[in-house]
Formats: sequence, C-alpha cells, structure tokens
Amino acid sequence: MLITWSGFTSVGGMNTDLVDALPVSLKVIGLPHVGYDHFDWEAIKKRGVIMCNSPGMSDNDVADIGLHLILSTYRSTSLFESTLRSQKNAALARRVVLNFDQDTGRADPGNEPMDPMKYVHGHRVGERVVTSPAGQRVGIAGFGGIGRALAKRLHVLGMTIHYFKRSQLSQKELKSLEGIPLVRHESFESLAKESDVLVLALPLSSSTRHIVNDKTIGILPAEARVINVGRGPLVDQAALLRGLKSGKLSGAGLDVFEHEPIIEEELLSRYDVTLLPHIGACTQKAVERALINSLENIKNVVVDGGHGIHPI
Amino acid sequence: MLITWSGFTSVGGMNTDLVDALPVSLKVIGLPHVGYDHFDWEAIKKRGVIMCNSPGMSDNDVADIGLHLILSTYRSTSLFESTLRSQKNAALARRVVLNFDQDTGRADPGNEPMDPMKYVHGHRVGERVVTSPAGQRVGIAGFGGIGRALAKRLHVLGMTIHYFKRSQLSQKELKSLEGIPLVRHESFESLAKESDVLVLALPLSSSTRHIVNDKTIGILPAEARVINVGRGPLVDQAALLRGLKSGKLSGAGLDVFEHEPIIEEELLSRYDVTLLPHIGACTQKAVERALINSLENIKNVVVDGGHGIHPI
Repeated sequence: MLITWSGFTSVGGMNTDLVDALPVSLKVIGLPHVGYDHFDWEAIKKRGVIMCNSPGMSDNDVADIGLHLILSTYRSTSLFESTLRSQKNAALARRVVLNFDQDTGRADPGNEPMDPMKYVHGHRVGERVVTSPAGQRVGIAGFGGIGRALAKRLHVLGMTIHYFKRSQLSQKELKSLEGIPLVRHESFESLAKESDVLVLALPLSSSTRHIVNDKTIGILPAEARVINVGRGPLVDQAALLRGLKSGKLSGAGLDVFEHEPIIEEELLSRYDVTLLPHIGACTQKAVERALINSLENIKNVVVDGGHGIHPI
Repeated sequence: MLITWSGFTSVGGMNTDLVDALPVSLKVIGLPHVGYDHFDWEAIKKRGVIMCNSPGMSDNDVADIGLHLILSTYRSTSLFESTLRSQKNAALARRVVLNFDQDTGRADPGNEPMDPMKYVHGHRVGERVVTSPAGQRVGIAGFGGIGRALAKRLHVLGMTIHYFKRSQLSQKELKSLEGIPLVRHESFESLAKESDVLVLALPLSSSTRHIVNDKTIGILPAEARVINVGRGPLVDQAALLRGLKSGKLSGAGLDVFEHEPIIEEELLSRYDVTLLPHIGACTQKAVERALINSLENIKNVVVDGGHGIHPI
C-alpha cells in the first residue's frame, strides 16, 4: 500500500521510472485528492496496482474559492486593496484606481497633484465601470461536484448559470440543484460565447490542455473574465496575458497556474488578476476527510480484499 | 432643491454652519445614498427642509462585498495573495504563510533556507488551521436590506444565521428570506456571544458608535472575526487591533474605517485584515439607481408638491 500527496508534482509526478521502481508487493495507491494528471496511470494499471482517489472531499471549499475569485474579479478587489495599502487613504485609493493602465495591469498615482476636494465614488476602474455579478452569465466548464456547488452560490448572487459537461446530469445531481435554472451547452465553444465570466472546473487531460487559448478567448463576450480553479495548464497563460493587455478580458482569477509552482513576473505584477497559491481544497476538515478516505480505500483493498471504494 | 454626495464627509459633513448658510428658498435635499450620519439632521429639520435618502439601492452590492470579506477572512486570501506576489512561487508562498506572526499580522520568509522538497498543503496559517465558513455561526448586527441580502448568501455556504435587530421582521421581510433558519437575539451582547464571525451592517448613531470595543470583543467566541460594511466608527479601531495582536480575533474584513479616509499604518501593514476603500455600494448600476431615486424624491417635492418618496 502507498498513500501519496500532490507534492509528487514538484519531482515530475509519478512517472514511468518511479512506477517501475515500486515494490512488486504493492497492491493499492490511495490518493487523498481528486486529480491524478501527475500520475502515469497507464503504467500503474499495467502493474496491476489499484489506484483510488478522493473525489468530493473538498467540493464546497473549492467552490468557496471560486466564488471569492469571481467576486474579486467583478469588484476589482485586488486592485482596490493593493492601492489602498500603498495610498494609505480610501479617497486617494479610489482616485488612483481611475489611472488603471490596461497594458501594465497596474494603477499608478501619476505626477499631477491630486485635488483633495475632488470626490471619486469608486465605481470606475480606468476606462471601465464596475459591474455587479447580478444579471451576468457565468459559464461553468466541468459540471462535477465543484461546478454544481459553485452554481448554487452564484444563483443567489443573481447570475444566470450556463454549463458544459459531456454527460447528462443524473436525476440525483439535478435534484441537488434545487430547481436552479440551468443552460446546458453541447460544446466548450458554445459555452464560451455566452460566458461573461468563464470558470474552469475541469480535470486536466490531453483534450482539455490549453482549452483557454487565443481562439477561445476570441469568442468570449467583450470584457469577459476567466477563473481557473481546475488545473493550471487548462489555460495558455501567454494567451491569457495577451487577452488582458488588449482589453478583450477585463480580469482573471487564478488559484492554479500553467507552470506551477512558478508564477511568471508579468502575471504577478498585474492587479486585474487575483492570484492564490493553489489553496482551493485547503481547509483543515477537507484535508482530514481526504486522508481518512484514502485510508478507507486502502483498507478496502488490503484488509477486506475489495477493489477500492473510489477506484480510478 | 439640493442633491448631495457623500463627499461632504471630507469637509466635516453638512454641519450647522453649512446648514445656516443654505438659501432660504431651499425646499428639499436629495441624498443618493442611505447613511446621513454626516448631516446635521436636527438643524436641517428646524429650517423646514425635507431631506430624502435612497435606501435599498445597493443592498445586494454591499452584501456582495460583505460576502467577499467573509470568504477572505476565513480563507486568509489577503495573506496568501500578498505572500504569493512576494515569493513568486505557490509552494514557497504556502510555506512562508506558516511563519505568520500574530503580533505583526505578517508572514516573513525568515533566515533559514527552505527545503525545496518539503511539501506544505496550505491548510495552516501560523499556528492556526484554515477553517471553512460552513458550519460556522455568523452574527449579523443590523438586519435591514443589506443584512438580509447577506444572510441569503451565507446560508448557501452552510453558515448558521444569527441576527440582532431592535424591531421584529415584517411578514414581507420574513418571506423574502425563503425559509432560511434564523436565530434572533434581543441584544448586541447576546449576538456577540454566538458570532464566530460578527458582521456590522448597522447605521451609525450615538448608541452604535464603538459598539465593537474591548468589552464586546471580549465576549466573542475564541478566534472570532469582525466584518464592517456599515460605518467606520462602529468599531473602536484601537480595540480591534488589540484583539488581532492578542490572538482573540483571527481576522477582520473592513470596507469602512474609523478615521476614514485615513487608514492607520498599523492596520495597513497587517494581512490578517482584508481592506477595501469603501466600495461596497460602488457599482455603476447602483450609482445610477441612487441618482435617479434622488431626482425622483426632489421632483416629488418641487414639482408634485409631495413630502418626498423616502423622507428621513
């Protein structure tokens, strides 16, 4: 038996060489997380090892971070907060934000002295007005546990929920959505066309890698936003940066990154992007649930002679 | 007629001197916002001037910012985001956050070299574990339009809703809450005892000024959070800082400040506090709605000979 952690990513994943080096007595691998894109699954299967993951242990926690990123992106909170910390004055911060530069993604105070009597309300960022999420369309790509938990949260904000999922929702899944109106799309491209904010809650595979690229960014509505709580390489990060600089995109919210753990300087210096260090699933209880689930999967195979509770 | 803006605060409010200087022909003052604590309401009334405000024009927008601050506070997003921007590496950011110092409110990398192979999950901030809002108790002080809009949002996150409001909710108000279980408290102190996160959505008056002080912070549960989307002086900011430094409070989320627009250095340098420059009501549509409402109030008095649609 083997219990692993996502830390494998930083050493190149559980690649073929590592799989070859596993002891012949190994029966089961228990993953205390959902994604297994960093595991050479074909090589593991060939060895006859059962691999089990821990789905659904942190859906609500990841959805909370998705909600946070959407609110941040609509209300420009990273820009407002960083400007407030540097200006040390709420009125000045709201005025400096008017200097927001699309090209650099920053708002600098400039050289002209600011008239202390001029009142700025804070409903504009550079040339753009601040929009509420209410009445806007969210497009959720990947409508598993995380996507559905997020849909419930966004429905209460007054957003219209669009989604893309290859398979139909089960009756149980539909019921859990408590009659929230949903618009299903047959393709990612169809979803993108209707997404004022596009949320990636997909697994990473050869068919989803760089699913957000220059072409798909091009078909998003004007001033759209992109949120990624799935896996970093779902997004072609260079294309995302071009979209932000050109003004096609009005913001992004990222908990995962293409070259994680490294984050590119150009992204780090922009404040139309809210950035988090992959903490979607990171609450104490979610970590405990996932660990217990892994041990139960291992016990099922080793002690009870089963095939695992959550085999992949 | 006179249409005003909150900018009056920065020149000391519409004080008695200014009211005395108003032309005798003035019939009505239209406020495109809710709060009127910066207006000498008694002096205005004595002059026979009708003053109307604009309630309910931005309840959902302020509730969205309240929700953002609660999510930020539970998931330590200001600390994680600022650490990610300085460390430029997601794995290092999660590790540096383990060095969070209660006294300074900061996480510094320290002098010891960090083992690049050591994996840190991100579910701990200093000595504390990261908690989900699910299952926690929110105490909403002031259960008007903003408080109720926030309750709907937090119910979906799985929080238990407690509130304090002097008057009973009307049948219409109760109905708008769609059967969400609510616990009403008869006093602010009773609410505070049960508030894992305390949210201030109250107007400012002599009875609510410094309602959060050393004494009321003392009766909050251990590691409680304080959110203020009402008015800055509801909070004794020195007491709040003492609560954060001692560890009695585990975080705060502030859109308003005691000495606004000035923000004290000690608050600005802490990252267990999420800070915004009073942008709760600042979306383009909310500003438009409030402006139109003010004009309608003025028209009601000046053109139609009424007493205003929303007289104070």
